[in-house]
Amino acid sequence: MLSMDMLHDAQRVLSPVINQTPMIPAKGFVPDCKFYLKADCLQKTGAFKLRGAYYKISSLSDEEKSRGVIACSAGNHAQGVAFAARDMGIDATICIPEGAPLSKIEATRSYGANVVLVPGVYDDAYNEACRLRDEKGLTFIHPFDDYQIMAGQGTIGLEIIEQLPDVDVVFVPIGGGGLISGVAYAIKHLKPECKVIGVQAAGAPSMYKSIKGNRIITLDSVDTMADGIKVKTPGDLTFDMCRKYVDEVVTVSETEIASAILTVLEKQKLVAEGAGAVGIAAAMYGNIDLRGKTVCAVLSGGNVDVTMLERIITRGLAKAGRTMSFATVLPDKPKTLAGLLNIVSDLGANILEVNHERSNLKADLGSCVVHLLLETRDHRHIEQIYDHLRSHGYLILER
Amino acid sequence: MLSMDMLHDAQRVLSPVINQTPMIPAKGFVPDCKFYLKADCLQKTGAFKLRGAYYKISSLSDEEKSRGVIACSAGNHAQGVAFAARDMGIDATICIPEGAPLSKIEATRSYGANVVLVPGVYDDAYNEACRLRDEKGLTFIHPFDDYQIMAGQGTIGLEIIEQLPDVDVVFVPIGGGGLISGVAYAIKHLKPECKVIGVQAAGAPSMYKSIKGNRIITLDSVDTMADGIKVKTPGDLTFDMCRKYVDEVVTVSETEIASAILTVLEKQKLVAEGAGAVGIAAAMYGNIDLRGKTVCAVLSGGNVDVTMLERIITRGLAKAGRTMSFATVLPDKPKTLAGLLNIVSDLGANILEVNHERSNLKADLGSCVVHLLLETRDHRHIEQIYDHLRSHGYLILER
Repeated sequence: MLSMDMLHDAQRVLSPVINQTPMIPAKGFVPDCKFYLKADCLQKTGAFKLRGAYYKISSLSDEEKSRGVIACSAGNHAQGVAFAARDMGIDATICIPEGAPLSKIEATRSYGANVVLVPGVYDDAYNEACRLRDEKGLTFIHPFDDYQIMAGQGTIGLEIIEQLPDVDVVFVPIGGGGLISGVAYAIKHLKPECKVIGVQAAGAPSMYKSIKGNRIITLDSVDTMADGIKVKTPGDLTFDMCRKYVDEVVTVSETEIASAILTVLEKQKLVAEGAGAVGIAAAMYGNIDLRGKTVCAVLSGGNVDVTMLERIITRGLAKAGRTMSFATVLPDKPKTLAGLLNIVSDLGANILEVNHERSNLKADLGSCVVHLLLETRDHRHIEQIYDHLRSHGYLILER
Repeated sequence: MLSMDMLHDAQRVLSPVINQTPMIPAKGFVPDCKFYLKADCLQKTGAFKLRGAYYKISSLSDEEKSRGVIACSAGNHAQGVAFAARDMGIDATICIPEGAPLSKIEATRSYGANVVLVPGVYDDAYNEACRLRDEKGLTFIHPFDDYQIMAGQGTIGLEIIEQLPDVDVVFVPIGGGGLISGVAYAIKHLKPECKVIGVQAAGAPSMYKSIKGNRIITLDSVDTMADGIKVKTPGDLTFDMCRKYVDEVVTVSETEIASAILTVLEKQKLVAEGAGAVGIAAAMYGNIDLRGKTVCAVLSGGNVDVTMLERIITRGLAKAGRTMSFATVLPDKPKTLAGLLNIVSDLGANILEVNHERSNLKADLGSCVVHLLLETRDHRHIEQIYDHLRSHGYLILER
């Protein structure tokens, strides 16, 4: 069972090890409320998972510690366990499914863990971890369904109340439910009138559906860029904790997650991973009345692959009308391209890419197709450019 | 003249307005030292410039305040002046050269300033600002060569000593010299044995050359992605302050700046702009002996255009061997492309882009050229892929 004593014990154990992450006022995200980010993306290992993993491992007996620990994860839990184990001088083995992003595997190795790449998907890696646990007498560190893990993650709840005593609403991401179980328990004991809202990706709504259905539901498939919360089945313990202590569970779309990541990057100069951004996305787009309230979203992690981040930026810019991409036909004669480029420049657009194709099936012989990628101000600016080009006789082929 | 009293007064004035930005421990940047980032990219407006602008404007007489202020900047100073003026209910006019990034212009407008877009370059915008100052009796807020501005920026120095009393070395970006003048003054008064190292971009080394030459030098041209410190001439006052209080001025290359930005993004989950990253780049690549020391780099701002950030990520990934791009020739027959893609996939590379050109002068008739962009693990992985392709008879055209 979880208790406030356990949470305070976790805080005592963790305080010399972890970063007390800042509570950052964030303007321009949600109108008419005081909005704050609890920035655990600034935690060591880049995510909150270190808290639970460290507290769990610290609570093992000397004999268990001497035999070592094992976990199964391709993500933040892997890094948390690896970091915590090395810090305490304990051997850690992490089973990772083979297709996992290269950067996550390298990061886990960099914290000194013994990485076992397992062919197949997560379930295969999990089975191999169980086999190794039994064979070698290792202790399995569950990513969420464990009271010590919840107590470690729950120290974020204690810090929220310390750093922002006026808080009225807290948004917390849910994957398996370890983070929100600890945070909601802490908040409901210290400030029962504060609302705790759990957030899942619409593509992986296992806790959302389980709470609605009043029983644990296993999803057939999950699909979201928020890989840190891509969980098919909630935990038994965390499901009960959510029923008791969480006011509401909501979901957000992939576009909302991408937009939240881009907003945090541009306005707040912080990197959020998909799972870390869902709470912010729900506050921004969830149609929850936050007027006049003091609101905190837990930005739980920042370990997004930079190649993924690049794609999110690209899509986010297009969505916001900050880039436009189109093709048009030009006679294959000198100066026609220069003429086109002058027109768009004069309208205040910045040319990012020009692609000039002579052999294009859509163009007549003697013509060529030009693709342009432009930096624009907003959707109105884009429409203005299209109107202007059409009025100058340009045919817009694709947009 | 600057004084510690002025610095403490600035701290008193600023404390209810600005964020006390965190001092963040940053592992894996510089070996064998305790490395910290003073993260003023988490400051309101995204950069330290608010500090100086706010303190300067707050010190104006009621009559000056009622007439309003004017500044000339396309960057952080513009946003700092706009934010500060609005906060105190004062009119602000900002002259911006017309070619400035759209996002910076929009950000300045969003803080309520009256933006005047001036055709031409910075000098033209500056002349227009002086004209408007004289015509309308506005007060000109200089971006750096002003003791009140230095006092405001110097509050970062006070915070560094408060937050990291053991600090041995501080790296500070230099553009015109306002930030380092205040910071160095504060640090040399509170802890004279702490070294203060100024950092410029090698493409805009005005203070570096002036200090070496022992007189103020104006550069003919400046060229760097670090637009916040792209300054042709140091200030008269800041030059004297640097001579008195700064231990050393060094420069960093564009590649070093880009690599520092990518490192901060990936390891620390923070967005640095070019000017904000030069101190970190100097600590990482400057061949300065930091072993066993406690070191702080001022991460002075995070207002990098996201389209620029995208380009930096792209280049940084290529530099680190995390992407590879090459062209090869294929017979223009079915399945040859699929064959090539299978080979690179089997070697563990992830396919990001495929570009298949039939009409390429480098290819014989009956052949075509394929460009591939792949996600790879590191430079060794790339060499392994090249070796494998060559041993299968592929001709590598460009790399």
